[in-house]
Amino acid sequence: MARERKSKQREGNEIEFARIVAFSDGVFAIAITLLVLSLDIPDELHGESVASALWGQHENLLAYALSFAVIGRFWVVHHRFFSEVTGFDGRLLSLNIFYLAWIVLIPFSSSVLGDHGGQVAVVLYAANLSGVVLTGMWMAADARGAGLTSIDAGTHREQRYRSLYIAAVFLASIPVAFVAPGVAPFMWLALFFDPAARFAAAPEG
Amino acid sequence: MARERKSKQREGNEIEFARIVAFSDGVFAIAITLLVLSLDIPDELHGESVASALWGQHENLLAYALSFAVIGRFWVVHHRFFSEVTGFDGRLLSLNIFYLAWIVLIPFSSSVLGDHGGQVAVVLYAANLSGVVLTGMWMAADARGAGLTSIDAGTHREQRYRSLYIAAVFLASIPVAFVAPGVAPFMWLALFFDPAARFAAAPEG
Amino acid sequence: MARERKSKQREGNEIEFARIVAFSDGVFAIAITLLVLSLDIPDELHGESVASALWGQHENLLAYALSFAVIGRFWVVHHRFFSEVTGFDGRLLSLNIFYLAWIVLIPFSSSVLGDHGGQVAVVLYAANLSGVVLTGMWMAADARGAGLTSIDAGTHREQRYRSLYIAAVFLASIPVAFVAPGVAPFMWLALFFDPAARFAAAPEG
Amino acid sequence: MARERKSKQREGNEIEFARIVAFSDGVFAIAITLLVLSLDIPDELHGESVASALWGQHENLLAYALSFAVIGRFWVVHHRFFSEVTGFDGRLLSLNIFYLAWIVLIPFSSSVLGDHGGQVAVVLYAANLSGVVLTGMWMAADARGAGLTSIDAGTHREQRYRSLYIAAVFLASIPVAFVAPGVAPFMWLALFFDPAARFAAAPEG
Repeated sequence: MARERKSKQREGNEIEFARIVAFSDGVFAIAITLLVLSLDIPDELHGESVASALWGQHENLLAYALSFAVIGRFWVVHHRFFSEVTGFDGRLLSLNIFYLAWIVLIPFSSSVLGDHGGQVAVVLYAANLSGVVLTGMWMAADARGAGLTSIDAGTHREQRYRSLYIAAVFLASIPVAFVAPGVAPFMWLALFFDPAARFAAAPEG
Repeated sequence: MARERKSKQREGNEIEFARIVAFSDGVFAIAITLLVLSLDIPDELHGESVASALWGQHENLLAYALSFAVIGRFWVVHHRFFSEVTGFDGRLLSLNIFYLAWIVLIPFSSSVLGDHGGQVAVVLYAANLSGVVLTGMWMAADARGAGLTSIDAGTHREQRYRSLYIAAVFLASIPVAFVAPGVAPFMWLALFFDPAARFAAAPEG
Repeated sequence: MARERKSKQREGNEIEFARIVAFSDGVFAIAITLLVLSLDIPDELHGESVASALWGQHENLLAYALSFAVIGRFWVVHHRFFSEVTGFDGRLLSLNIFYLAWIVLIPFSSSVLGDHGGQVAVVLYAANLSGVVLTGMWMAADARGAGLTSIDAGTHREQRYRSLYIAAVFLASIPVAFVAPGVAPFMWLALFFDPAARFAAAPEG
Repeated sequence: MARERKSKQREGNEIEFARIVAFSDGVFAIAITLLVLSLDIPDELHGESVASALWGQHENLLAYALSFAVIGRFWVVHHRFFSEVTGFDGRLLSLNIFYLAWIVLIPFSSSVLGDHGGQVAVVLYAANLSGVVLTGMWMAADARGAGLTSIDAGTHREQRYRSLYIAAVFLASIPVAFVAPGVAPFMWLALFFDPAARFAAAPEG
């Protein structure tokens, strides 16, 4: 393919390739760490006890735990995807930056969720995470179409399966949010179970 | 050249060189991630709905998207520049730190833009980004003059072309900001198109 | 063991393994640096002098120093643990992310401690750090059980010894917090002394 | 020496050593980027123009520029120091973390300086930076005494010379701060000139 011929090979451009991965890891690491900023009790409590102020953070703490697991999971997926990338060009870099823009939004959506809950917050959160998943699938399909990954058919299927599973969890939570906003976030706990994990753990060869 | 002879070669100082790149990547990654901090809705909404508070963030979200794309683009340019660097000295390190100081300012300019818009904010933003571009060109010309890069004439021309294109977009937006401040930011969308991309995607040899 | 056979070997997957370590280091580095955000004096002091505003931060500064030492110590432990890891699978990655979620909470617990002190804050802090230590021991035992580390019996004992020492310091401080909340944090200074240090400094062979 | 024999050699522990450097670089990169958080204009300006609100930030901008240059300079010094390190033990790691704790304080001191200026702020800032320099000299002397660096006498002298120069600039500014607090920060511009630069730029051999 024209694009494959024009791309830089990973082999022979190891340092450049390592930078892409390191930059992405940095963004993931910062986004996941900024989640803690949504936890906060005022410097001065006007008559309120520390214990009750902390209790007032329990929804933020739930949002923190969920988003930490979610970003962590996305990092693992990204990690696996790039371990199979064999070449890169400007287009893959742009898609990767677009993907990261969705990841970096998560601390915002997560803090809205923790502070306000309710339908709108749940929809925002689910939309944000669906944005991550769909952009990730786009990037994977694009790289595969351009011959930039050595991914075999089985792993590709496994990763699409996993992505669709995640997308399904979030999309399914949106209608639930309209009926019972308090229940929808619990559906996301389903992300802790990874039906594709046994593929993921299997050795390459 | 005297300076070339005195510089440290990249070959034989791989770890030191990798640190420069890793430090720069770290700064880029943090700056791009801090952009999310400009998105914020109050912990307590006094009578306002979550939906309308979110709507009140739509200009901040636009600023977020623009700045993410802008920093991402600068990172790609920086990435390509350093992939051709063959030696380094104190002067290149200082110029790189000066360059990064402009990059780190972007989250501030971006948040002023998102919060206030208007002529002053647009001029601040355009000035900030012109600072990045001009410092980048200075660094590139300085490194080339000192024989610290293996960049060939074609790639050098391509990078200067790209830098001038970016600078032109920002400088052109300043007069527009005085006439129609709401229009100027849309001009920056032109950065998504990269007239030099076909050079960038071409393999080295 | 089944899990060992299914895991990816570190050898032959160096770049993937390096990413896990780099991501963890990034999270540690950001969490330790965010500690500074708990130090803050208002932009506008209403009649108060800068000196007295700074003095009002002395408890936050103590919390900063303690938490910096604590996160730094945990980083050293994590560092040593991963230097012996020889393979990894999805489960180790998940445990590592769970471990990091406890680390990232520290800036929050630390700022509550610095701002409010008292029983509740001390218990929160001690609970947070016990969470780190217990998750770390779980991860270490799990990896060892699955044959994913080359750690010898001596080093394993040393690390368990060190972990138990840290956990003991924090757990012991909880009852003290109920009697004398102002004293409990000083007990944590015991973390500066590392009874396992002579093992740690010993060469491998 | 006993300590040298017990330390881990850099050679043969490349990955562990790289983590120390990467962690330090991460902390530097985050600290330098957090400087931007001290620049801030309110979301809602009550009757004030954006231009005058920005003008109100000019002292913060000065503090930003100074601290960026200062942290950048310290990073270069740290960078050069670790390029000569040949072994490491728990003590060097602890000193390095202690050193980083001083670095991470800079965004706080810098924001106090930018917001309030005056004697107290200048003394705080100068004390913070002296803390960095003195801890750095301690770490360097300790590592050299333990045989953990390959630094030759000339470079060691150069680095001590540079450190003393930086310490002298800050210490000299403290008495000036009592007479003319507005002048003292300008003395720090002397850090842009590096009397030891010609040594630094010289090749190793």
